[in-house]
Amino acid sequence: MNKARFEAFSDGVFAFAITLLILGIVLPAFKTPPSESELRGALLALWPNALAYALSFAVIGIMWQNHHALFRMVERVDRRMVFLNLLLLAGTVFIPFATSVLGTYPWMHTSTFLYGIVLTYTATIYNVMLEHLIRTHAFLREISPATIRDTVKAYKIGWSIYVLAMLLALVAPIVSFAAYIFVTLYYLVPHGVDRDLETSR
Amino acid sequence: MNKARFEAFSDGVFAFAITLLILGIVLPAFKTPPSESELRGALLALWPNALAYALSFAVIGIMWQNHHALFRMVERVDRRMVFLNLLLLAGTVFIPFATSVLGTYPWMHTSTFLYGIVLTYTATIYNVMLEHLIRTHAFLREISPATIRDTVKAYKIGWSIYVLAMLLALVAPIVSFAAYIFVTLYYLVPHGVDRDLETSR
Amino acid sequence: MNKARFEAFSDGVFAFAITLLILGIVLPAFKTPPSESELRGALLALWPNALAYALSFAVIGIMWQNHHALFRMVERVDRRMVFLNLLLLAGTVFIPFATSVLGTYPWMHTSTFLYGIVLTYTATIYNVMLEHLIRTHAFLREISPATIRDTVKAYKIGWSIYVLAMLLALVAPIVSFAAYIFVTLYYLVPHGVDRDLETSR
Amino acid sequence: MNKARFEAFSDGVFAFAITLLILGIVLPAFKTPPSESELRGALLALWPNALAYALSFAVIGIMWQNHHALFRMVERVDRRMVFLNLLLLAGTVFIPFATSVLGTYPWMHTSTFLYGIVLTYTATIYNVMLEHLIRTHAFLREISPATIRDTVKAYKIGWSIYVLAMLLALVAPIVSFAAYIFVTLYYLVPHGVDRDLETSR
Repeated sequence: MNKARFEAFSDGVFAFAITLLILGIVLPAFKTPPSESELRGALLALWPNALAYALSFAVIGIMWQNHHALFRMVERVDRRMVFLNLLLLAGTVFIPFATSVLGTYPWMHTSTFLYGIVLTYTATIYNVMLEHLIRTHAFLREISPATIRDTVKAYKIGWSIYVLAMLLALVAPIVSFAAYIFVTLYYLVPHGVDRDLETSR
Repeated sequence: MNKARFEAFSDGVFAFAITLLILGIVLPAFKTPPSESELRGALLALWPNALAYALSFAVIGIMWQNHHALFRMVERVDRRMVFLNLLLLAGTVFIPFATSVLGTYPWMHTSTFLYGIVLTYTATIYNVMLEHLIRTHAFLREISPATIRDTVKAYKIGWSIYVLAMLLALVAPIVSFAAYIFVTLYYLVPHGVDRDLETSR
Repeated sequence: MNKARFEAFSDGVFAFAITLLILGIVLPAFKTPPSESELRGALLALWPNALAYALSFAVIGIMWQNHHALFRMVERVDRRMVFLNLLLLAGTVFIPFATSVLGTYPWMHTSTFLYGIVLTYTATIYNVMLEHLIRTHAFLREISPATIRDTVKAYKIGWSIYVLAMLLALVAPIVSFAAYIFVTLYYLVPHGVDRDLETSR
Repeated sequence: MNKARFEAFSDGVFAFAITLLILGIVLPAFKTPPSESELRGALLALWPNALAYALSFAVIGIMWQNHHALFRMVERVDRRMVFLNLLLLAGTVFIPFATSVLGTYPWMHTSTFLYGIVLTYTATIYNVMLEHLIRTHAFLREISPATIRDTVKAYKIGWSIYVLAMLLALVAPIVSFAAYIFVTLYYLVPHGVDRDLETSR
């Protein structure tokens, strides 16, 4: 499998999934033409949808960066990786659905738990991908073992926080929602993989 | 026709079609705010849609890989191939529709048969494409006749199973659905084209 | 403006517009779970939508090929061309809407006329683009004046037929619909630009 | 971050966002098959949606060109820029929603103000991006300080007009709508960045 075409296809799916998020924000239909205050009220009532939109935009944006950072260190892509990548993309494309449920029912156990399942799922696949890359020695020569160790650690921490946030949904949905935002902000700061590459450049 | 732009356009359509699959999973609207158990119930009731989503994600993913594997062996793309490719893409883009019908009415003759028509159609086009490539000697020199023979065989087997699964829909929709999943898993394992290229690398 | 990025953006819009066509085929919701014959009936009743889908898939596919064939002959893209290209893409993206109207009300004057307006609009822009390229001497040196003349002629013929088909919609919608299919088939056969390049290769 | 992949991802999002605009034009469902004049009436009643579509198509088209023109002058893309770019894209993807609100309720304070917020937001991010590029000396060597100064000025003027048009929405929605069209037309004319590069080529 040609790495460039593999990345281009993945980028296409990431870009498309991130754009489909907007379909989760829908203005309810009015039976009669609304007054200014009715329209304003209906728009303002969409703030949880807008918050879920912003969260998931950051989540998919980070996943894309992550994908990029990971495969920049990789020399070749085998068939098993293509399969794992499809599993990852299937989870990513599911995010717009989970986001629209979260935005519509923001403070419910069910919707925050569903959101957690999807993020835990994608984080799990990222960990499996990393393991597969290590086992098949697929990394470029110039990537130091320390960098790989750092990446493994960072991936495990991320995964743990997602699991925790998902479980929190069973107890306190609002705290869970806040935790998703926290992890997302945590990932916006460089660590592991990227730091190394940025230094080495 | 420039092969790179031909592939990029095809990749774009595959990536969009695979992402549009998510629009087949829609949470029904509630008249009054749902309770936790109502929301959970409504989400769990979507499991056939989720299954159809996963199946079609794999189907389109494999078709994309297939496209990739085929055209990696090809030297040039003529106008007739562009036309055949459009026929293929039109079938691919139809998959999200057939998937949403399958997910909504999973155990009916009509929906499993419709799904079978679409997959048989795309498999037929792939066979016609292969024939056209052979007839016009469009393969790269380094591709051995044995590889081409293997590919022809693999394509014919795939096509036959799809036809069989489609016909099964007339008798036993559930068995037909299971057969689609079986063929899809079969294609996730390398054969013909790819094996050769992977060895030769 | 970098020609490669200009083409990549256009390709993205063409690929996305062609994929959105599938949203014009929607199975009506059933109030109670449908019987096999009800579901089959509802699906078969969508045949005009499927026909309009196939037509527009071919139309956008040809427009993409045309775009490709035209800009392969071009040396550079100026700001005015970027503007004309935006006008062209705006018309292309409009096609899924016109297609869904045509598929839903296939034999009405209004819907076939609307479809004709959109196709005439895009054909007009293509003619303006060609004129602009000629006026600014933007063609590659190796393109012969004869090829350009042939292309101009082919564009004018295409435009005339679209106008005619559009006007036919005012009198006989079915004949107009058939004419769209005729023009589309006509354009699937190589002429002008492509013939020359294919020979010269 | 590889600049080419950064641009490709951005281009993908611009192309998808511009195509999603068409979903803002929806023909209302008829309870009984419409007569010719009813269908014509329903289509003609969509003219504000079509106007909003054309406006936003131009807006996103210009933003894409702008992105292109800006990053053509840039040598490297750091992590902070990737973050700013995500903020920009999140605003861009929001445009189809704001457009569908504007097209449905074209002469209301609320919808023209919402549209203004989104455009002011994206214009603000563009200004922050430019500042960041200047502060981190990220421009290519051959870009003259005069060009950068011109660009800063052009960005500030654009931002000011958007703010003004947004505030006008509070007083006179129609004038605000007209102002959006005016700014858009203003940006279709080359200035700053592009002029310099076009001359230097």
